[in-house]
Amino acid sequence: MGNELKELIKMCDLAIKQKDFDTLMNYYTDDALLVVKPGMKAQGKEEIKKAFIEISKYFNDTLVPTQGEMIILETGDTALVISQTLLDADKKETEYSMDRRATYVFKKNSQGKWLCAIDNSYGTELINK
Amino acid sequence: MGNELKELIKMCDLAIKQKDFDTLMNYYTDDALLVVKPGMKAQGKEEIKKAFIEISKYFNDTLVPTQGEMIILETGDTALVISQTLLDADKKETEYSMDRRATYVFKKNSQGKWLCAIDNSYGTELINK
Repeated sequence: MGNELKELIKMCDLAIKQKDFDTLMNYYTDDALLVVKPGMKAQGKEEIKKAFIEISKYFNDTLVPTQGEMIILETGDTALVISQTLLDADKKETEYSMDRRATYVFKKNSQGKWLCAIDNSYGTELINK
Repeated sequence: MGNELKELIKMCDLAIKQKDFDTLMNYYTDDALLVVKPGMKAQGKEEIKKAFIEISKYFNDTLVPTQGEMIILETGDTALVISQTLLDADKKETEYSMDRRATYVFKKNSQGKWLCAIDNSYGTELINK
């Protein structure tokens, strides 16, 4: 339990590193929500893909996300992943940390495939900003 | 949007304050997951009710939870709530903070009613412990 989600997140990280945003979108629900930054959200695959292209550009297309410690709270078709998300890039982000405590919500679809429904790399920092 | 969830969480807090754990269980899914403390989970209404009775006893039945700042990330039938959860009681918890940054996952059931599926008052602190 949980290994499937770990593998999936690894594949998301790889797709971001490879700037393969079409593949990345396969891991999101149709109405998924991405917290681009505190106070700014993208919803749906089209908006999320655009946001990832912008984020990638911002980091000079050198962004490599990896995950450190991870806790998976899974029940039925719903999972909350609490993860140490490490961002590496040529250009460092100054306003927000590159070493985050992220919160991701995944849902299992009717084919039994996990998809990301809510992607919030800022975790609980959202209420401190 | 989100007000329904805010009201629901208020009703949960009131039920805990009143030690009305049968009413409290109406706000959880059948297979809900509660993080009792880092490394200890309760799953399903029976276990969660027992856990709340124990938690209440631990605080000399004087526990009053309230919510401060709250961010609701809602899409379709899924919501992630990031909330400042304040615990008050005659007896203070020493190991864990009484001022938490909690993460709650809610799901809308087929009747359109929001229910708590994952209750993790420790938020991202789970990966620092």
